[in-house]
Amino acid sequence: MELDDRDLDSGQKHYKHVERLPSVVESDCEIEKEFANLSIMNLNRHLAVLENDYLYHISLEKSERLRKAFSDVKFVCMGGSPKRMHQFAHYIKEEIGFQLPIGVALQNISEESDRYAMYKIGPVISVNHGIGCPSISILLNELIKLIHYAGCKDVTFFRIGTCGGVGVEPGTIVVTSEAVDGMFRAEYRQIVLGKEQVRKTKCDEKLVQEIVDIGKKFENKEGIEKVTSGKTLCANDFYEGQGRLDGAFCDYNAEEKMGFLRKCRDNEIKNIEMESLCFSGLLNYANIRAAVICVTLVDRLNGDQVVSHDLNLQFQERPFKLVAKYIKEQLKTK
Amino acid sequence: MELDDRDLDSGQKHYKHVERLPSVVESDCEIEKEFANLSIMNLNRHLAVLENDYLYHISLEKSERLRKAFSDVKFVCMGGSPKRMHQFAHYIKEEIGFQLPIGVALQNISEESDRYAMYKIGPVISVNHGIGCPSISILLNELIKLIHYAGCKDVTFFRIGTCGGVGVEPGTIVVTSEAVDGMFRAEYRQIVLGKEQVRKTKCDEKLVQEIVDIGKKFENKEGIEKVTSGKTLCANDFYEGQGRLDGAFCDYNAEEKMGFLRKCRDNEIKNIEMESLCFSGLLNYANIRAAVICVTLVDRLNGDQVVSHDLNLQFQERPFKLVAKYIKEQLKTK
Repeated sequence: MELDDRDLDSGQKHYKHVERLPSVVESDCEIEKEFANLSIMNLNRHLAVLENDYLYHISLEKSERLRKAFSDVKFVCMGGSPKRMHQFAHYIKEEIGFQLPIGVALQNISEESDRYAMYKIGPVISVNHGIGCPSISILLNELIKLIHYAGCKDVTFFRIGTCGGVGVEPGTIVVTSEAVDGMFRAEYRQIVLGKEQVRKTKCDEKLVQEIVDIGKKFENKEGIEKVTSGKTLCANDFYEGQGRLDGAFCDYNAEEKMGFLRKCRDNEIKNIEMESLCFSGLLNYANIRAAVICVTLVDRLNGDQVVSHDLNLQFQERPFKLVAKYIKEQLKTK
Repeated sequence: MELDDRDLDSGQKHYKHVERLPSVVESDCEIEKEFANLSIMNLNRHLAVLENDYLYHISLEKSERLRKAFSDVKFVCMGGSPKRMHQFAHYIKEEIGFQLPIGVALQNISEESDRYAMYKIGPVISVNHGIGCPSISILLNELIKLIHYAGCKDVTFFRIGTCGGVGVEPGTIVVTSEAVDGMFRAEYRQIVLGKEQVRKTKCDEKLVQEIVDIGKKFENKEGIEKVTSGKTLCANDFYEGQGRLDGAFCDYNAEEKMGFLRKCRDNEIKNIEMESLCFSGLLNYANIRAAVICVTLVDRLNGDQVVSHDLNLQFQERPFKLVAKYIKEQLKTK
């Protein structure tokens, strides 16, 4: 790949030429050297010539301070809503016994951006990703750059959330084996420079198995119940995209809806949510270990109405507990 | 369309049969009657047989109280971030002279959901939509149901936001004439029950012209400057989807990026953002008047780096001011 400095927005702060290191721009060889010890695959090679990089949506900037502050990160845990990930931050803090000095509290690192809420608890990041693939895609881009700039090694990403189930009892934890789109394709499709680009969304088999095994080990103990793996359908919409009958629009009838849900079941889909395709697509491409762990709040084959508020809150804790067990076991061996 | 009550998830609270009104289920004619005086087109006819409807992501429930509380709504203003829409709520409150009793403050109506932040200022709703089409799609579904249940008439929706510009000076306000996807198609594509569904995304010409005219009237006065209309490219991603060189991944070079941006300009695209396709697609389909009004923070033909923080804040106010002028003019004539 040729880096054309004429087009590199030269003269602007962000893309300003690194004049001390002209060889970086002129020689692919130099870039290869800078990237040689990376475990992250397919990383954007233009990053090597950025003097500054402001991770706009998480309010962080590439710097020596950032490198020192984040170099110990081993686990990035993501979920939809800011309050839930604030809760997870406190929960994992207790679980791993992370101590804060007296008079000090966890603080939202990305407060200023007003887009995502992010907390750091020793080797764990807890951050909310909002709703849908475009929202999680921005966060993943900036987090991957963050762990790159911080020189983190062996990082594992988790998405922990809630979902609709297909043919599984409410409260079941589904560990995604592969994410599929609304047409059952295990592909994350993006339009890049006017062309469709496809990334594979099969999940890390070893990690999936390790998490299912931990689930089995603790099943019916400490609030971890019914752990299984299966395909996850990732929709771009909560209503029509998931075959619900109660959106603002619905051009299909109840029979067609049930036909589709049965077709999901016949295709080994166990749950439906809205972010797994981008999550597994991008992290797969970067060769970063990642798993999607969601608890089902309804069996869509039996209806659309989710479990009661109390059960909902109780079920939401299950993926927290499972991921905490995994993190604790991993930290013991490190 | 046949409504099949066997499949309507009977027995569950949400889809429980309206036993007092069996004719609603049995007869299309009754449903037509219920929907006859609606200005909203293509509304989901299943809504007529829902006894309860909990608008989960905005924490509201269909009820007589909801109808009374929201029946006066005439304008729904949406933008990305919660703080910005909180600011807009206070700004429009002052602009339209909406009085609150002493000791009373605006409150986030959807606080409990932890997904969106929504404020009501007399006839105006100010609400944040998060990032991307899936996120705004959930909100639009629930807001369209809200104005339906509240019996609102003649409602206008606005998306007011920031964007990248293409061939226009930073600070320009672009009123979207039509939203196009990454392949320049004026179509909002969703996968519904395994099939691709296409909705048109051309915006209301009359409304676009009215807003541009108000812009011209106040141009260079009261902080409203450079108002134009044009096509808007809606991307599903901030980095690769918008041809940026500084994402975690980038399989193209700077020349290819510039080629794409020039192609955008040649296709009459004036700005790039991430929600206009769903916004115009769904509101078009519902025959609800709607406009996308975004201020550009950069001319992508000259670089990727947005304007300074101070200019950014100043520019963000421009769409607020323009929409406030429109709302005030409309309220005068009502």
